[in-house]
Amino acid sequence: MSDCTTTPKINAAPASRRDKREAARRYIVDFKTAAHTGSRRIYLQSADGTVAVPCREVSLHPSPDGSNNAPVPIYDCSGPYGDADYQADVSRGLPPLRADWIAARQDTTFCSTPLSALAVELDAQQGQFQHQVRQALPGCRPTQLAYARAGIITAEMQFVALRENMARAAQQQAASDLQPQHTGEGFGAGIPAQIDAEFVRAEIAAGRAILPANINHPEAEPMIIGRNFLVKVNANIGNSAVSSSIEEEVEKLLWSVRWGADTVMDLSTGRHIHQTREWILRNSPVPIGTVPIYQALEKVRGDVEKLSWELYRDTLIEQAEQGVDYFTIHAGVLKDFIPLTARRITGIVSRGGAILAQWCQLHDRENFLYQHFAEICQICAQYDVSLSLGDGLRPGCVADANDAAQFAELRTLGELTKIAWAYDVQVMIEGPGHVPLQLVQANMTEQLAHCHGAPFYTLGPLITDISPGYDHIASGIGAALIGWFGCAMLCYVTPKEHLGLPDKEDVKQGLIAYKIAAHAADLAKGHPGAQLRDNALSKARYEFRWLDQFHLSLDPDTAKAYYQAALPEGADTEFCAMCGPKFCSMKLNQSVKASTLSAPPAERANEPA
Amino acid sequence: MSDCTTTPKINAAPASRRDKREAARRYIVDFKTAAHTGSRRIYLQSADGTVAVPCREVSLHPSPDGSNNAPVPIYDCSGPYGDADYQADVSRGLPPLRADWIAARQDTTFCSTPLSALAVELDAQQGQFQHQVRQALPGCRPTQLAYARAGIITAEMQFVALRENMARAAQQQAASDLQPQHTGEGFGAGIPAQIDAEFVRAEIAAGRAILPANINHPEAEPMIIGRNFLVKVNANIGNSAVSSSIEEEVEKLLWSVRWGADTVMDLSTGRHIHQTREWILRNSPVPIGTVPIYQALEKVRGDVEKLSWELYRDTLIEQAEQGVDYFTIHAGVLKDFIPLTARRITGIVSRGGAILAQWCQLHDRENFLYQHFAEICQICAQYDVSLSLGDGLRPGCVADANDAAQFAELRTLGELTKIAWAYDVQVMIEGPGHVPLQLVQANMTEQLAHCHGAPFYTLGPLITDISPGYDHIASGIGAALIGWFGCAMLCYVTPKEHLGLPDKEDVKQGLIAYKIAAHAADLAKGHPGAQLRDNALSKARYEFRWLDQFHLSLDPDTAKAYYQAALPEGADTEFCAMCGPKFCSMKLNQSVKASTLSAPPAERANEPA
Repeated sequence: MSDCTTTPKINAAPASRRDKREAARRYIVDFKTAAHTGSRRIYLQSADGTVAVPCREVSLHPSPDGSNNAPVPIYDCSGPYGDADYQADVSRGLPPLRADWIAARQDTTFCSTPLSALAVELDAQQGQFQHQVRQALPGCRPTQLAYARAGIITAEMQFVALRENMARAAQQQAASDLQPQHTGEGFGAGIPAQIDAEFVRAEIAAGRAILPANINHPEAEPMIIGRNFLVKVNANIGNSAVSSSIEEEVEKLLWSVRWGADTVMDLSTGRHIHQTREWILRNSPVPIGTVPIYQALEKVRGDVEKLSWELYRDTLIEQAEQGVDYFTIHAGVLKDFIPLTARRITGIVSRGGAILAQWCQLHDRENFLYQHFAEICQICAQYDVSLSLGDGLRPGCVADANDAAQFAELRTLGELTKIAWAYDVQVMIEGPGHVPLQLVQANMTEQLAHCHGAPFYTLGPLITDISPGYDHIASGIGAALIGWFGCAMLCYVTPKEHLGLPDKEDVKQGLIAYKIAAHAADLAKGHPGAQLRDNALSKARYEFRWLDQFHLSLDPDTAKAYYQAALPEGADTEFCAMCGPKFCSMKLNQSVKASTLSAPPAERANEPA
Repeated sequence: MSDCTTTPKINAAPASRRDKREAARRYIVDFKTAAHTGSRRIYLQSADGTVAVPCREVSLHPSPDGSNNAPVPIYDCSGPYGDADYQADVSRGLPPLRADWIAARQDTTFCSTPLSALAVELDAQQGQFQHQVRQALPGCRPTQLAYARAGIITAEMQFVALRENMARAAQQQAASDLQPQHTGEGFGAGIPAQIDAEFVRAEIAAGRAILPANINHPEAEPMIIGRNFLVKVNANIGNSAVSSSIEEEVEKLLWSVRWGADTVMDLSTGRHIHQTREWILRNSPVPIGTVPIYQALEKVRGDVEKLSWELYRDTLIEQAEQGVDYFTIHAGVLKDFIPLTARRITGIVSRGGAILAQWCQLHDRENFLYQHFAEICQICAQYDVSLSLGDGLRPGCVADANDAAQFAELRTLGELTKIAWAYDVQVMIEGPGHVPLQLVQANMTEQLAHCHGAPFYTLGPLITDISPGYDHIASGIGAALIGWFGCAMLCYVTPKEHLGLPDKEDVKQGLIAYKIAAHAADLAKGHPGAQLRDNALSKARYEFRWLDQFHLSLDPDTAKAYYQAALPEGADTEFCAMCGPKFCSMKLNQSVKASTLSAPPAERANEPA
């Protein structure tokens, strides 16, 4: 690897390539459930019984003094897979949870000649999926935003309300001797004491939150993305021309929802893009996002000059018919902004942004996504595809952060937001990228200032460039910070970022780093009930209820494995291998605590407002 | 593991225990050098030639346009091990770099009857170490603080000045076409444009920085801990009663300095504490810290009631004679503060804090470390042992953060700081622990308000409790933030925290997470030259100089391995497996950049003051 000019040898695939595909095939065929050790599936029922929201419940052992510990509910977006009794069959896909809700609204109909049918004919690896394409009736806009503005509370909104309010309800039942939650700092967020369906409707109507739910993706459970709700996490999957297969991508999907992805983006740029997406959509309980320009470019065999609005439009319709819940559209990469990137260290690092910048220059014309933005909105309104306005000019290194190109595009995204809203299309705004710590907050304040309160959705940001192989950590730091400042969804970065396509294990590592960041942000904002799980785990830790500690943690399997690796198999002790029996502070402290419990309660020191 | 009351079976060691020890033995016997791929050792010379500061230099390939890229110097505390030509022999230890400097000051003498000699007789596993114990001449205080106050610039101060100024010097030579560094936000830090020995002296004299350098640890290279210098990282090693051996601890030491630990704490609580420390000190190029109460408790077989000042005093002298550079002393755990912890979820989680709280209650007397603090300072002044005032009442979960107990102790540590300074003893202050994001800054402001500018040294903090197995990430987030706010040194947390004793790989994972956090803080504070490495790596990334990118990264081996895992062995391409050839934004962007370089330079958007 001493010479940087050798021509690519992409045909000579590593020997392990076929093995990985076969292993993935076995995994998804054998896959039945993704339930976590120590958790059971429960359902939160709406008052009228029409909506049942799945969540995980961790039941706890009693304390040494015999007192009981209330079970802890955990937000769970793994869908049917999170039910230990579920028998998954990925070749048939998930049950269409939302089908009746969508039909009952009577504003859509089945499409007799779907564009996507053409693509399906090419399909060598189609499953036995029964997917009938829906589209809006003439004059109808079956979007959650249209319903919200009309004052209609949908079943999806009820579902979301129960889900987001879960921890609040649990906190009210929790033992009163648990420490109260700290006062949060929300930087202007409006987080309510209780969340009901009307609050959900109002936030969507105001454009402050989106509920991505394509009428052609009835398998997906409703979830909401907005500053006044829990911070969400997205996992990127998808193949590339030199790596992965449909089997591996379905495996990553199952792995993503198991480890807590709230949404998944299929960023496939390789072969079988349509079929890969079909397998992902039919098996995904979470909303699926895409970057349609990737498939459009694949259709012209990577020749950017051949890209056209017509080709792109057909790709949008094809994907909308399949059920993609949100599209990343790089409509803010304007011809005039491109020169602003000329003196950057890393130029344009967004794939979509680079493609469109090159197209603008080859044709010496304005970005066709900007020119045809109204038509894009008309398509999205027919299927309730949400828009994720892409930051094609985001910085690719800390040096390029917060520059003129980045903020010029951001202001344009603000203008486009108003256009999308005029068509009742839900919108969120994408953000960077690479930003040093001291410049992170400016990204949030600029977005709030120019994008009219639409939700922000950032990739990290990475707060340094020197950690390839560990960028899930470098970006998790920036993600926690911007989530606290008000970012609504965090797009994960895996350890393979900048180096290669993530595999199943990378997906897990990226997700856990981001679940930490998102939860840290919820705690910092003072989201009611967010601290419940921390308090329960810490109490279990202090009382040596090791199993409870493992079951309450983000990754029970790893926590238990690390503990047991250092102590005899099956040992269950009042200490761990870190300190041993005589130096366990918590053990030493039991007597101290016992003898001082008669003392007056500790006052809480002043906290920052 | 279903029952939490089983009695410990700590005698039944896992089968792999002996194998691990044997593997470690082989590693340290064969160990010769810790040089990194793609780096070479260079030395920065002082004007008078008396001081030569080792550092790493990464030389870079030319850019595609043929222009050269300046080599990048990297701060390197791996000592002689970082020199590819060095032939280490851990049974003999490192050369005594500082021996002549110490002798030349003529304020110390060799000790004829060292207390530590008694311990050495017990030593079953002593190496061939030639360590002659030094102590101060009567009436002398051979501490860097005493010298600094007397206006003396020591060789140690010159060494530190060259080291801390390295990136500044390099930046001035760097190619002018590199992006300028962003304006930092220092929250009141006073970071100079240039660092010279007089600045180092002045910072030490003011108590704002410490240079931990026991006269009995001449093997250690000088380094400085202070808010106006680069943020440092500490790695904790040390055995426990149920895990590890001397060989494994020496292996962890070598691993720690290879991955960038600025100081190492030996927290051994198991067997052979004295001998383990001897092996660590004689082979460590970085300052070594300890918590002497651990060895004192071991001497009374874990019976807290039997602890006494006399026993503790002799332990301090024994360790000072061996060469320990800083002591963690929990002198702020006052009897009256203990009741303030009674209603915490996790009580007292500091091992030292828990031991002393129990002692206070068993004897119904004030903490003997507080009562005898002046005598502790007198001992430290004789050997230039720095004090790290321990936070025995730090919170062990987010719920307990920033409470009355924690801040009461912090104010006491501020009082003790003034006493230590009266004896010319260098001091830093330890901090938490577990703190949610919105309460992190209050820890820094309280410390600044009550501890007279003495350096802050925190353990993380973890910003959530729900990530056992991944606490290096949860705490790395808090560490980056508090480092930015002004914390001078970050004590790492490994993936095994709360679960077991870290092994070699855990040490590496913890260190890399903390090098990311410390560097992110340096960037955010606007430390001159800090962004040089980021910019060079990003430029290499943009120009597909893969080897340069790997060599500039925190872990060149892992970055290269991840890249190669996804592409044919030895392939060297203008893309990676993440995007493949047609979707590489940086490749697409080359043409865009080329055609726009005639454009006016991009203005930098406004940044927060």
